[in-house]
Amino acid sequence: METQFRLLAAIGCAALTGALFTQQAAAREGMFTPEQIPGIAGGLRATGLNLDPATLADLTAFPMGAVISLGGCTASFVSPQGLVVTNHHCARGSVQFNSTSENNYLENGFLAASMGEELPAVPGSRVYVTLQVDDVTEQVTGGLDPALAPRERFTKIEQRRKALIRDCESEPGYRCQAASFFGGLQYKLIKRLEIRDVRIVYSPADAIGKYGGDIDNWRWPRHTGDFAFYRAYVGPDGQPADYSGDNVPYTPPHFLEVSAAGLEDGDFVMAMGYPGSTSRYARLASVRHTFDWQYPVFVELLADWIATIEAAAPEGSEARIRYESRLAGLNNVLKNLKGQIDGARRNGLVQRRAEREAELSGWIAADPHRMMLGQAIAELDALSEERAEEAKRSFWYGNVLRPQLLGAAQRLYRLAHERGKPDAERESGYQERDMAMFRQRMSVIDRRFDPAVDKAEWILFLKGYLAQSAEMRIEALDEAMGLSPELSDEELSRKLDEYYEGTTLNSLDTRLALMEATPEEFESDSDPFIRLAVALHETQMAREEEAKVRSGRANLLNPQYMRAIINWQQARGHAAYPDANSTLRVTYGTVMGGSPADGLLYEPFTRLQGILQKDTGEEPFNSPESQLDLIRAGDYGDYFLESIGSVPVNFLSDLDSTGGNSGSATLDADGKLVGLLFDGTLESVNSDWDFDPSITRTIHVDTRYMLWVMEKVDGAKALIDEMTIAR
Amino acid sequence: METQFRLLAAIGCAALTGALFTQQAAAREGMFTPEQIPGIAGGLRATGLNLDPATLADLTAFPMGAVISLGGCTASFVSPQGLVVTNHHCARGSVQFNSTSENNYLENGFLAASMGEELPAVPGSRVYVTLQVDDVTEQVTGGLDPALAPRERFTKIEQRRKALIRDCESEPGYRCQAASFFGGLQYKLIKRLEIRDVRIVYSPADAIGKYGGDIDNWRWPRHTGDFAFYRAYVGPDGQPADYSGDNVPYTPPHFLEVSAAGLEDGDFVMAMGYPGSTSRYARLASVRHTFDWQYPVFVELLADWIATIEAAAPEGSEARIRYESRLAGLNNVLKNLKGQIDGARRNGLVQRRAEREAELSGWIAADPHRMMLGQAIAELDALSEERAEEAKRSFWYGNVLRPQLLGAAQRLYRLAHERGKPDAERESGYQERDMAMFRQRMSVIDRRFDPAVDKAEWILFLKGYLAQSAEMRIEALDEAMGLSPELSDEELSRKLDEYYEGTTLNSLDTRLALMEATPEEFESDSDPFIRLAVALHETQMAREEEAKVRSGRANLLNPQYMRAIINWQQARGHAAYPDANSTLRVTYGTVMGGSPADGLLYEPFTRLQGILQKDTGEEPFNSPESQLDLIRAGDYGDYFLESIGSVPVNFLSDLDSTGGNSGSATLDADGKLVGLLFDGTLESVNSDWDFDPSITRTIHVDTRYMLWVMEKVDGAKALIDEMTIAR
Repeated sequence: METQFRLLAAIGCAALTGALFTQQAAAREGMFTPEQIPGIAGGLRATGLNLDPATLADLTAFPMGAVISLGGCTASFVSPQGLVVTNHHCARGSVQFNSTSENNYLENGFLAASMGEELPAVPGSRVYVTLQVDDVTEQVTGGLDPALAPRERFTKIEQRRKALIRDCESEPGYRCQAASFFGGLQYKLIKRLEIRDVRIVYSPADAIGKYGGDIDNWRWPRHTGDFAFYRAYVGPDGQPADYSGDNVPYTPPHFLEVSAAGLEDGDFVMAMGYPGSTSRYARLASVRHTFDWQYPVFVELLADWIATIEAAAPEGSEARIRYESRLAGLNNVLKNLKGQIDGARRNGLVQRRAEREAELSGWIAADPHRMMLGQAIAELDALSEERAEEAKRSFWYGNVLRPQLLGAAQRLYRLAHERGKPDAERESGYQERDMAMFRQRMSVIDRRFDPAVDKAEWILFLKGYLAQSAEMRIEALDEAMGLSPELSDEELSRKLDEYYEGTTLNSLDTRLALMEATPEEFESDSDPFIRLAVALHETQMAREEEAKVRSGRANLLNPQYMRAIINWQQARGHAAYPDANSTLRVTYGTVMGGSPADGLLYEPFTRLQGILQKDTGEEPFNSPESQLDLIRAGDYGDYFLESIGSVPVNFLSDLDSTGGNSGSATLDADGKLVGLLFDGTLESVNSDWDFDPSITRTIHVDTRYMLWVMEKVDGAKALIDEMTIAR
Repeated sequence: METQFRLLAAIGCAALTGALFTQQAAAREGMFTPEQIPGIAGGLRATGLNLDPATLADLTAFPMGAVISLGGCTASFVSPQGLVVTNHHCARGSVQFNSTSENNYLENGFLAASMGEELPAVPGSRVYVTLQVDDVTEQVTGGLDPALAPRERFTKIEQRRKALIRDCESEPGYRCQAASFFGGLQYKLIKRLEIRDVRIVYSPADAIGKYGGDIDNWRWPRHTGDFAFYRAYVGPDGQPADYSGDNVPYTPPHFLEVSAAGLEDGDFVMAMGYPGSTSRYARLASVRHTFDWQYPVFVELLADWIATIEAAAPEGSEARIRYESRLAGLNNVLKNLKGQIDGARRNGLVQRRAEREAELSGWIAADPHRMMLGQAIAELDALSEERAEEAKRSFWYGNVLRPQLLGAAQRLYRLAHERGKPDAERESGYQERDMAMFRQRMSVIDRRFDPAVDKAEWILFLKGYLAQSAEMRIEALDEAMGLSPELSDEELSRKLDEYYEGTTLNSLDTRLALMEATPEEFESDSDPFIRLAVALHETQMAREEEAKVRSGRANLLNPQYMRAIINWQQARGHAAYPDANSTLRVTYGTVMGGSPADGLLYEPFTRLQGILQKDTGEEPFNSPESQLDLIRAGDYGDYFLESIGSVPVNFLSDLDSTGGNSGSATLDADGKLVGLLFDGTLESVNSDWDFDPSITRTIHVDTRYMLWVMEKVDGAKALIDEMTIAR
């Protein structure tokens, strides 16, 4: 599921970000914060948890202390020597980074023969260990006058969050968040150890770890060995350090035992992870905008966009290699959005949301004390409408800003401005703490850019932009580029040629050097992309200002709305949980199959035999011959599950998860690792908006399959020995 | 499933005919002839049949006497007034034939308010009532010297079959077959009443009868109301007659009661029908040729062919309307072939067939008395290899002969030759009894021909033909058309233009007039297609001669092979049944779900609610609003099935069926009509070659859904009253 996160960052899909980080949610609704555990202790026990629920609330205790974030994916420690298990798709970038045509680790898999042969993960890789979470609501929102102007409210809150982060990060080696919960009703300061030396230890071949590829993505039945191992290293002093031969394995506070025992249909499971984003409380206006306008329009654009790239970067071309990852990402989003649209239609999302809002309104109207909440919600609805209108107005303009060198020019010019301010006052993303990532982003262009493809994309976006009615167009853009609907295809093409022929931004050296340039230097630069960035700057800033005013309004209104939701749910005996926000959450439920559609049933487990059934010998169904032979021979080792007559490969549960949960430790009733969460079914993708317990299912790779592959196929005996296996 | 029959006739896919009539077969292997019933009586009883099995063996008794053929589809009588029920897809051509833009019966459905308003079915429609079946093996093969030359053997057998048919049809109103069973080990003379006045009585709208369309075709879960009603009319004297206002409803010897009662999962069901063709006993050489060469090559061609038509007949064009049916057919075959290739791979068809043949060889070798059988089989294998080689050599040449006017010219010229012979000696297809169908075939071109599309197809085929090595080309064709691989695209295109510009065969009058022309008139005709047909005639006849020699060899060898199979199976306690050959068969088993793949289960029944789930409002998921309302309201009438909580829509069984079984009466243990067989699952399509009981499932529309639609949606109360409903 992490793919989506990567993609949406890559395509700079700002307008859609909030919506598209959505992935899926499961039948046992609720992504609970550790502090909510006491409130759900009864449910946990009733469902089968053997551990004392209270232990789950303690981040520094077992098992939560073993669960870590990779930034976008979840992982967990599985040995006292810093061994980390996560999804294959979360570690694949590192395998790819180390692959050469002689040593094709993607194709052959990678297994370090000893610690000394473990390879550095892709630059930018991190292991984040959550150390402390403090409620800082008072520090962020305390004493703010309700009458404060929205823009000032926004600024105050941002400044306070930045100050908290700065203090928290004053000691080196930590990365902090001042995360908003319940739409800003609550803020928490989360302190994480930031381990910078991460190494790849073991990854099965793509033909196991990515088995089924894009075809099976979001599908059940599934047979994907979506697991891989990292190791976290620190300096000899035990503190985070850059990669060095002197570094030593990190000793985690806790690690998980790995189960090879009998998880069965109906058994209790829970997953700990860092889900990215959900929209369970979005107002009707936003739901309508998303499903009636934004998704359908974007789906249409996506289809054109994919066709455009495929035409400009034909199969087998050098350019295609550079755009493979984007193509996969766009196809992934397309599949997801179609799934969401189908789900919304099937569940009657809009109707159900309208009904829920009517119920909430009724509850508010029933008590005059709640009048203020009603007033705030009315204002929030007006704001939602405004935002929807603005999203429509920005849609094509936003797309026109996608060309990679234009994006780089805009970010670099903005950096020049921000660098003139004290660090604490800089925009988030332009502070010193962001510079490593900024540099990373400037570098990656070299591997993902082809001028002909970029131009073809730009033409597509510009034509969409120009096809709009005149009042939707942006004057500064029209003027700077000399755009008008009268332009012929040829004129437009020639115009863009000037950009690609005249730029030097395609050189990494140029881009990195510009990280030190002044605004004035940009303003006298003749690079056409920089000239365009400079010409658009004022408009961009004005639009950002407007957005910040809207955010300031939301900062006041959302907490009141969420307060209403919490109280209303409480009155009905339900515990409201905050939307996902990339912080550590717990979800629990049971192993169970499902029914995605009338007449069709999902079994809870898949079997080794299913690999024989699917295997065609061609990617993505090209299991190694040695694995096929083992299956044919019925060589199940110690991993056989009687009730299914095979080694379980993947399993389904009713857990509530979403993008970012990838790699989440799936634990049994005793806190033993029984699987890694790695996907949801396509029927579930709409659950980020509207939870449908009958249809939502989360997909896990079973640790018995993981161990079977390690023992039988890849001979990773030493790693099995390093872990504690519960048999 | 009948679609395939139609299509393959339409595309003149002679080389593939045997293979492609295949559709699917079910888990309870066996398509038994009525005379085999005594041998399977034990199985029938054990599975749950309440009727005396012996009654099934009597074609003139209930229930077999109620089951009829429409030629390509099966149907059955359901009232004493000649009311016939069959699949919607079997009657749709008649609905289309009567539809106008004002009265769009496809879109709105058709229900005759009274008998007087019943409309004539599409020209050529027939109801065939099987009256008598006699073993004529002795008359066909008796006294033939084993040393007879193959060509003479072929001729003798054909002459004897034709003579039997001629005698059988000497009285008007009958249509007879001298059908070959077990590869010619047995022949039966089948006498059928041929009713020519067939009228459409009731057909639900496409949005019910074709619900799910091509998307759901061969898929489960399914929600298709695939039923429609005809009525058979005869002259006032009770004899078959052409359509006339004086005609009266036919009184069938038997009709079926229609069940509205509780068919459940696991219940006994049996289907009577006219399955078209299977290849269960094909030799390994033929299996290999089909799956290693023929299907893959044809799949590739199909994709190109579809793209060619789509490009030449763009959506919305007049031409597209003419080619819709062909496109649907080609897509259908493509889906089927891919399903077959997948199935063969999954089941290891080639390996299994090799093992079976080795077992048979072992059995033969075990007894010196069987030596002659072994010898015959060895010769049959050599013949299979020869035929495979010949099929490869003919592949592109055969495709080059596809253009519709060339095909017409060839058939017309052939007719001119055949007409010079006494009727009994004419080639089958050119006898007097075939002339109505011949004329029909000449007429249909008017609705399905567009010169630009036809030319684009021809170019595709010619390029494939010319891309072959020189020795694969046919001299007469190269010479007549001036073909050589050196031709540029433009030259080839100009060459073909001469054909389309110079022909008058695009006029129906011309074609019909040519049915009376002499060979000499053809030979002096200047029409380019006729000139080409004349130029190819000698080559075609020589190739036909060679094929007849091979058939003569098969006439000797196949019966011996099938004798070996029968004896070998008998020795193992199995009853061998003959491959399907469009004669009346019985298959039995139970209602049951299945598992198409590891991790996935099919439920045995689908529910009304599934229609709500699937419905998008857009074709093919555009159920009438009135129906959706009834479902939402839970208005189940008397058709509710407690165990599934709804009205059952479609159900699965393990019956053994194939193309031609469409419309087959599905009966319960008491012989009551509980459903109409209309399709098989895609996983089953390979079962015509190799029976896989674990995966093969047949799809039926439940009579409860049929009655629910009739009563609640379409108000077809009078028809329900006309039938005998068992509640």
